[in-house]
Amino acid sequence: MPKISIKGRMMPESPIRKLVPYAEVAKGKGRKVFHLNIGQPDIHTPEVALNAIRNFSDKVVAYSHSAGNLSYRKKLAKYYKKHNIEITADEIIIGAGASEAILFAMQSCIDPGDEIIIPEPFYANYNGFAINAGVVVKPIFSSIETGFALPPIADFEKSITEKTKAILICNPNNPTGYLYSKEEMETLGKIVKKYDLYLIADEVYREFCYDGETHFSAMHLEGLENNVILIDSVSKRYSACGVRIGCMISKNKEVMQTALKFAQARLSPPSFGQIAAEAAIDTSDSYFDEVIVEYLARRDVVVEEINKMPGAFCPNPKGAFYVVAKLPIDDSDKFCQWLLEDFEYENQTVMLAPASGFYSTKGRGKDEVRISYVLKVDDLKGAMKCLSEALKVYPGRTKL
Amino acid sequence: MPKISIKGRMMPESPIRKLVPYAEVAKGKGRKVFHLNIGQPDIHTPEVALNAIRNFSDKVVAYSHSAGNLSYRKKLAKYYKKHNIEITADEIIIGAGASEAILFAMQSCIDPGDEIIIPEPFYANYNGFAINAGVVVKPIFSSIETGFALPPIADFEKSITEKTKAILICNPNNPTGYLYSKEEMETLGKIVKKYDLYLIADEVYREFCYDGETHFSAMHLEGLENNVILIDSVSKRYSACGVRIGCMISKNKEVMQTALKFAQARLSPPSFGQIAAEAAIDTSDSYFDEVIVEYLARRDVVVEEINKMPGAFCPNPKGAFYVVAKLPIDDSDKFCQWLLEDFEYENQTVMLAPASGFYSTKGRGKDEVRISYVLKVDDLKGAMKCLSEALKVYPGRTKL
Repeated sequence: MPKISIKGRMMPESPIRKLVPYAEVAKGKGRKVFHLNIGQPDIHTPEVALNAIRNFSDKVVAYSHSAGNLSYRKKLAKYYKKHNIEITADEIIIGAGASEAILFAMQSCIDPGDEIIIPEPFYANYNGFAINAGVVVKPIFSSIETGFALPPIADFEKSITEKTKAILICNPNNPTGYLYSKEEMETLGKIVKKYDLYLIADEVYREFCYDGETHFSAMHLEGLENNVILIDSVSKRYSACGVRIGCMISKNKEVMQTALKFAQARLSPPSFGQIAAEAAIDTSDSYFDEVIVEYLARRDVVVEEINKMPGAFCPNPKGAFYVVAKLPIDDSDKFCQWLLEDFEYENQTVMLAPASGFYSTKGRGKDEVRISYVLKVDDLKGAMKCLSEALKVYPGRTKL
Repeated sequence: MPKISIKGRMMPESPIRKLVPYAEVAKGKGRKVFHLNIGQPDIHTPEVALNAIRNFSDKVVAYSHSAGNLSYRKKLAKYYKKHNIEITADEIIIGAGASEAILFAMQSCIDPGDEIIIPEPFYANYNGFAINAGVVVKPIFSSIETGFALPPIADFEKSITEKTKAILICNPNNPTGYLYSKEEMETLGKIVKKYDLYLIADEVYREFCYDGETHFSAMHLEGLENNVILIDSVSKRYSACGVRIGCMISKNKEVMQTALKFAQARLSPPSFGQIAAEAAIDTSDSYFDEVIVEYLARRDVVVEEINKMPGAFCPNPKGAFYVVAKLPIDDSDKFCQWLLEDFEYENQTVMLAPASGFYSTKGRGKDEVRISYVLKVDDLKGAMKCLSEALKVYPGRTKL
């Protein structure tokens, strides 16, 4: 039998999905499982997007432009203008989700063997994209004690080597929900400028900011037009994860020309998804108002309930729909598996994502879990009750 | 300004798309351009597929399974059974087009720096996928004189080194239209077995076989269950290029487990595309009967007309919807650009793909072009008339 690729073997298994077989065990026992492990919202996709699909009238489902339909990119430029981001259709390449857009960005800017700095904990699939692109991830530590604020500038500078080509941030952050302030973004901008790096900014949760906070985009940084690459997606914005439509945006012409060659090699992004995403731009503001109210209520339930649990701590993040919580447990991988295999409260249990998978540094996140608050308030209350009861009886509970 | 990636710069520009700006020039002059440069058929997508999209009734466009919807994979297994290919749903991973499936296959089987043998001319984007995966392409020459038959076994053996991990074929072939016989496939199978290689078989044109010939799949080879990786796509089969749905299939469990990790990192393939593709499996046999009759008529026009042109030669391929033709020209890149920039016949011209882009070996294919017969017979006749007239006046015409 021929050997398989070493690079292939290096691909980490998704920390979010590796528990799926155990969830099947729980379901097999007739238990209800609250899924707080994955960022798949239950919010409805806007009707305006679904109607565009239902009204598809072309006779042939043809390739689109490799960078995406021009009509969609033009309309997207208007969407960004509303967010004070001035870009043109030529400065956008549509990808199959933010996933593909991040890969294009890494492949265009960073050579195999070169380094990218990412504050950890970070979105676990960044590891996969980096391995895919042959890029080395250099994590720098952000702490739950500060609510996962931007690490000190000195920590970035300590990590910068000759091989450092980019810094990658996610704002608002998955998995922490942390929203970087204007000041933090400007601090980042200074480091990027000083060392002539790329700043890849994953801003797919832009719309999800709470408590009156507003989002400050990397594209708002002045004088960094050739450094900033914006990553975006319609998956979360319109609860349309399955359309697989995201984009990369940059004013750096050389980067965009290079990325376009990667885009051309795979021909085009999904046509149906682009139709839905283009129509979705007409989604009313009231849709978002309602969604924000809903997520805010959910966040409040999760944060409040966790902080009531003895030995547990959860910051109160200002964005996205995730929290990373610290629990009085020995090992979050074991705990999350135990919740599914061995625990039930009133025939219910909860599926969480062990935070270990969101750290690149081995050993970190062992007493932390990521919770996606993507269920209705009543279900979240049920899930939090389960978690609370579970912590009372978990054999690996740490002493308080 | 930060440096861009060397790997990014290595990405070849698509030979099919690099002429697009010149086509715009021709259109700007009010000329009608016959597009024979790209494999975008004008055949209608089956109604059964489009209706499935129009009837989409979910409230949320959610992620699918990373390997694709189970219902789709189960139905696909039945499709393959009709083609005497016995596989299960677990042996299929759905990708965003064959493009993504080929990338997964390369990444799972071949380490960066290792080699893949591909008979040339070959589908130009294989170069892009190889660069993407860090894989080195070793071309072996197939000649227009033999109609692009499988090169002699000795040529394969001469090219095999310690770094060779796989052979990649496309059958029926893009760009040549050549259909490998059962005997040729068995010859390939023996080399693969002897040197313990992977055989990656791109069979996206399976349905398009002419003159009573039948398709012999790499999956029909006995004793190579752990070596063969089948690549497929619905783009051409159902004229649905924009849905971006393909797949990789293998009975090698280790390969599939590895590929699944790449699939998980990008979350899932497009949901709408999967719905269309699943429904498309119910397309009636009569649809294909009509399509084959249509393509056959088109092939006959192209082959017959080209062979009438003095100094030109075109084999009569048995599959797909492409031919590579030899023309009495100095340089196919120059010629194809000239057709768009400087030539017109009755205010019409034709866009072809220079065959140079389908060869990995520099200098080959300079007097060859690829023609996609994806237009109606009348348009094809118009296009062939243009080509014939162009060859009479092209300044770089070679002496006969």
